[in-house]
Amino acid sequence: MPGSALGQALRLTTFGESHGPALGGVLEGMPAGVEVDPSRIQRELDRRRPGQSKLTTARKEADEVSLLSGLFEGRTTGTPIGFTILNGDARSADYDHNRDQYRPSHADYTYDAKYGFRDHRGGGRASARETAARVVAGALARQFLEQLHPEAPLPGVSAYVERVQDIAMSQAPAYHPQETVDAHPVRCPDPETARRMEERILEVKKAGDTVGGSVVVVARNIPAGWGEPVFDKLHADLAKALWSLPAVKGLELGSGFSGTLMRGSQHNDRFTNEGGRVKTATNHSGGIQGGISNGEDIVLRVGFKPVATILAEQDTVDSAGNPTTMTGKGRHDPCVLPRAVPMVEAMVLLVLADHALRQRSARL
Amino acid sequence: MPGSALGQALRLTTFGESHGPALGGVLEGMPAGVEVDPSRIQRELDRRRPGQSKLTTARKEADEVSLLSGLFEGRTTGTPIGFTILNGDARSADYDHNRDQYRPSHADYTYDAKYGFRDHRGGGRASARETAARVVAGALARQFLEQLHPEAPLPGVSAYVERVQDIAMSQAPAYHPQETVDAHPVRCPDPETARRMEERILEVKKAGDTVGGSVVVVARNIPAGWGEPVFDKLHADLAKALWSLPAVKGLELGSGFSGTLMRGSQHNDRFTNEGGRVKTATNHSGGIQGGISNGEDIVLRVGFKPVATILAEQDTVDSAGNPTTMTGKGRHDPCVLPRAVPMVEAMVLLVLADHALRQRSARL
Amino acid sequence: MPGSALGQALRLTTFGESHGPALGGVLEGMPAGVEVDPSRIQRELDRRRPGQSKLTTARKEADEVSLLSGLFEGRTTGTPIGFTILNGDARSADYDHNRDQYRPSHADYTYDAKYGFRDHRGGGRASARETAARVVAGALARQFLEQLHPEAPLPGVSAYVERVQDIAMSQAPAYHPQETVDAHPVRCPDPETARRMEERILEVKKAGDTVGGSVVVVARNIPAGWGEPVFDKLHADLAKALWSLPAVKGLELGSGFSGTLMRGSQHNDRFTNEGGRVKTATNHSGGIQGGISNGEDIVLRVGFKPVATILAEQDTVDSAGNPTTMTGKGRHDPCVLPRAVPMVEAMVLLVLADHALRQRSARL
Amino acid sequence: MPGSALGQALRLTTFGESHGPALGGVLEGMPAGVEVDPSRIQRELDRRRPGQSKLTTARKEADEVSLLSGLFEGRTTGTPIGFTILNGDARSADYDHNRDQYRPSHADYTYDAKYGFRDHRGGGRASARETAARVVAGALARQFLEQLHPEAPLPGVSAYVERVQDIAMSQAPAYHPQETVDAHPVRCPDPETARRMEERILEVKKAGDTVGGSVVVVARNIPAGWGEPVFDKLHADLAKALWSLPAVKGLELGSGFSGTLMRGSQHNDRFTNEGGRVKTATNHSGGIQGGISNGEDIVLRVGFKPVATILAEQDTVDSAGNPTTMTGKGRHDPCVLPRAVPMVEAMVLLVLADHALRQRSARL
Repeated sequence: MPGSALGQALRLTTFGESHGPALGGVLEGMPAGVEVDPSRIQRELDRRRPGQSKLTTARKEADEVSLLSGLFEGRTTGTPIGFTILNGDARSADYDHNRDQYRPSHADYTYDAKYGFRDHRGGGRASARETAARVVAGALARQFLEQLHPEAPLPGVSAYVERVQDIAMSQAPAYHPQETVDAHPVRCPDPETARRMEERILEVKKAGDTVGGSVVVVARNIPAGWGEPVFDKLHADLAKALWSLPAVKGLELGSGFSGTLMRGSQHNDRFTNEGGRVKTATNHSGGIQGGISNGEDIVLRVGFKPVATILAEQDTVDSAGNPTTMTGKGRHDPCVLPRAVPMVEAMVLLVLADHALRQRSARL
Repeated sequence: MPGSALGQALRLTTFGESHGPALGGVLEGMPAGVEVDPSRIQRELDRRRPGQSKLTTARKEADEVSLLSGLFEGRTTGTPIGFTILNGDARSADYDHNRDQYRPSHADYTYDAKYGFRDHRGGGRASARETAARVVAGALARQFLEQLHPEAPLPGVSAYVERVQDIAMSQAPAYHPQETVDAHPVRCPDPETARRMEERILEVKKAGDTVGGSVVVVARNIPAGWGEPVFDKLHADLAKALWSLPAVKGLELGSGFSGTLMRGSQHNDRFTNEGGRVKTATNHSGGIQGGISNGEDIVLRVGFKPVATILAEQDTVDSAGNPTTMTGKGRHDPCVLPRAVPMVEAMVLLVLADHALRQRSARL
Repeated sequence: MPGSALGQALRLTTFGESHGPALGGVLEGMPAGVEVDPSRIQRELDRRRPGQSKLTTARKEADEVSLLSGLFEGRTTGTPIGFTILNGDARSADYDHNRDQYRPSHADYTYDAKYGFRDHRGGGRASARETAARVVAGALARQFLEQLHPEAPLPGVSAYVERVQDIAMSQAPAYHPQETVDAHPVRCPDPETARRMEERILEVKKAGDTVGGSVVVVARNIPAGWGEPVFDKLHADLAKALWSLPAVKGLELGSGFSGTLMRGSQHNDRFTNEGGRVKTATNHSGGIQGGISNGEDIVLRVGFKPVATILAEQDTVDSAGNPTTMTGKGRHDPCVLPRAVPMVEAMVLLVLADHALRQRSARL
Repeated sequence: MPGSALGQALRLTTFGESHGPALGGVLEGMPAGVEVDPSRIQRELDRRRPGQSKLTTARKEADEVSLLSGLFEGRTTGTPIGFTILNGDARSADYDHNRDQYRPSHADYTYDAKYGFRDHRGGGRASARETAARVVAGALARQFLEQLHPEAPLPGVSAYVERVQDIAMSQAPAYHPQETVDAHPVRCPDPETARRMEERILEVKKAGDTVGGSVVVVARNIPAGWGEPVFDKLHADLAKALWSLPAVKGLELGSGFSGTLMRGSQHNDRFTNEGGRVKTATNHSGGIQGGISNGEDIVLRVGFKPVATILAEQDTVDSAGNPTTMTGKGRHDPCVLPRAVPMVEAMVLLVLADHALRQRSARL
């Protein structure tokens, strides 16, 4: 059954394998009249693109998006926006070794278990390359959100690398604008921490190994009232969207696991009136109460595991189940986090835009 | 837009407020021919029921489920299973105070922001009472999963309280059968830790305060191959389902956040052949790789915040935004965790059953 | 896979068999703030109810709806509206004969082919009794539509019996208010035709036989702009909704099949300006162009086959495939059309209300 | 809200305007392991293609499909199949006249009413060109259905032109193989009727006018048991799919409107046992009973209106509502029916394939 679509009112359907002719998607439900700046879409793609710094894989993909429909004279028409990104620098032969062997902690074995066979080249549909389509759609969602309430403070969704392995920022999660985040290729807004993260990444890269860490994403200026009670709680939809990214191992909202150590009397966010606006004195709730946004910053932390492809020899089995060993090939990231930043933002943007539209049906 | 339904092939739609006439649901997509033991459904409801021990709220609800359709001579017919649970012991007057005031860290304010007004009695639709419908559906899903592959090892989904505030089990997450878990009303399978948890809960109860903690859930004997690539990854759907429960602040799969501290060479789960079956030497992946089950135990940890209703006076605002104070009333749990155990199981059961059916379309 | 839900933004999920404890449904997505008059829901149910005149089945069902959720102090709250209708006058023994035999042109055989067995009592889920839940939801949708644009002319959806077998009104399809339609129990607004229809129905009833015919439904004062291009065209969704009613054999929109005999130059609806409003000089389009309402009356004709249950002996087979004969029992309508009128209205109302909400996302 | 996707287990999402860079789609849910012959897809596209005979529009489109994903070494992989068709011979200037004017019985006015503006070139998204994506997906569905039960008689879905205006075949609806249908460019399997249809079409073409008629589609060798009770009845989903095609005005199943003139005793399809197989003596039901296939031929008749674009001058209004006149331009078909044949087949194939998969969840 289909599992490549996300969202209700704004719905993204994606397709494409790592080494097929192209990947792409269809974004349905975008309202008519949104002015689209294609260069801003491309810019987000460039942030996700492999080969952008020595911290990332050497695979070079231009990752140029072609917008095929749903736009007319610079604006959305209300009809589906189809788009493709051609696959260029695909060295399929690099993957001959995993045609009949299962790379540990990859999806090779599970795809075979599910489908009976698989497109093994570059991980096929399980490749993180698939996220390029999400970034395109997220960039469209961002432009929609920015134009939605022109009279209100501009909504912003920004993510950054908070921690690489055990090297972490000491600052509490906060909104850092994209330019601050992008000032260092590791995408940590604290320069000194960024420097140490880079060192660590280069060190493990040299060792043929990989590291993980955490990304924080903050959405600010989101109106109160978005999100649906019960199953489609705003943070439940955010959770699904974020957990659908490759390599995610943990997620926290607001106070997260550390909030579970507090007592209710400490954890509760008292309401206050600031200049006529209902606010909360603290934000342990992470901007969402009862599944509905309350107007405070939405704060999420996503934990990413170390990339599974390492250069060392590893024990594994072949597709007949026989024990064997294999050594990582292909061009991979020593640390997925810098490139995960735009992916995380895209997922949050898509969910917020979806619920912005859903909210239009809340009242008579 | 609707947000009270969950699942694709097996779909639960729920309805009901805390103090309305009844709550209930419709479970669509259950295949024909599943033998249903209604007493097992009731038993799960009893585990979730308020008033079952001194650790939980004093609200007494019989929580008897009426199965209204979709069953014939003891078996499912393939048509929707409708069910209701009448609301009995509802003291709506207990809630007069929050008609025009916003309880901190509850959904009062956000419901008003969304809908313009709300059914304030007992939290209305935002009450955790809504989860009773999930437990009914989960109990049906469990019976389906148990009968799905009669020749294979019996699938099991069991949750337990791993930690209350800072009082935690030292054992690693593992499958503990329901009878072990239920041996102590706190639902921690380690008797000594359970005893200390109980002490803590009674202590905070006495102080009019509340505590949170974490629940671990393990699903065993789940076949490899369940879950869809990309957005409907098995763990993405589990994440959404679990985050849709009230009070969730964090979620981990397998190695979780601690896994993000490892290097890839440590974290990767090597494949082995055990008696002709592909297994992994470790299970940092938590039973899911690339969004698809790999046959290992599925292991998740859910963090719950302390219950928001406390007896102390708290600063807040009224519905006009004016600062005021309010003091908790109503009958509430000092700690949600013991009653969260059957809710967590229900969500996992529903997602697994949904993907069990979806898997039937994976191959020609 | 689930097939008991209809609609996107406004979604009805139903459950219930003819002879089970109850049937009912959940209506999700109804916006908050709609004033609900429950007596108007009951009145629609009474129009569908068996036993209302000698033209209909003698089965007596009070068909009283219980609204279980989603309402507070007379208004919708935005949360799901759950409801049940108890099954009362069920004589299950009347159906012992079709436990192991297949009634011709009923769903007995196909349910067995699909599910392996079935609840045979009263047709189970295939009974037209299932439509009671649709009528409840349709009555709620009607109240929503009436309150949606208080400043605009009141939208109206009214159906009537245009033809019973070969006895047909000579008047072209038009909007006839409910009171005109209900003036005669056959629900034909032309008194003389109604009289002749009644004669025919009583005649075939006496012969133990049944007749069909056609129902026309007209929706007036529907704003231009409702409906989605491509698959969810307004009339495609209307078609699906109407074809989901039992016994439907044909459907026409606007000029229908007779329109397919015209030339384009005759069939095209010229645009005119009437007092500043864009209108069409004719309405062959039936109020919908390119799948989107154009503000003219929406006009549909639904053909219903003769009821399958007849009193004569018929050849058939038993569940082992052996030839046998059977004679109709149970209490059935000689002609479904008078009771189909509220069902047809309900389906049109549900689709229109769904698209009214969907239209809210059409523009930035 | 999105309206460009169809199907549940097998889901087609389409995109593209008539004069944009490309149109295309994503087919999700196709099981892994289906052998795909791309030339058979192209052949179906060629049947739909404009410019294939003097009976159709002179617009020349190569309509070459590019399959971008979901295939590996000649078989489907279970992942989404993305595809595009480039738009070539688009003379956008031909449509300058309808930028600010509304073509009668086209979707120009309703798109403006919905979205506030539109891509006017060639009808934009409302162009029948959009159906090319459906034909691609239908051709994939056909190959899946043919390989689904290799041991059973080969399923077949074939449509043909039964009537052009008042020139109709005298033969009852029946299965005619594609080669018989395609023997004449008008796609009527009766040579003499085909000849007279052709004459009529050329005659109205010469007059700058257009004609409609009806297409019959028959699906044979479809197993009993497909289709869901209640809303997703097999014929309800077929109805939606067929009514979503441009220009449809009427639909009949089996006996259709003429069946509504019969008595129940005449109309009922008696069950018989033919060589151990349950059959019906007649097929007034059109192969579907209670929304579920019964193994007999599925027989539907679709009425198409005359094409709205005519060369004569017509009264209309401009986008400001001012009366004006306009004369048809662009290259259009005098009769849509020959090209509608593959479109009708595609819709039926998609719905059948969807329900084939859905049926896999019917039983434990």
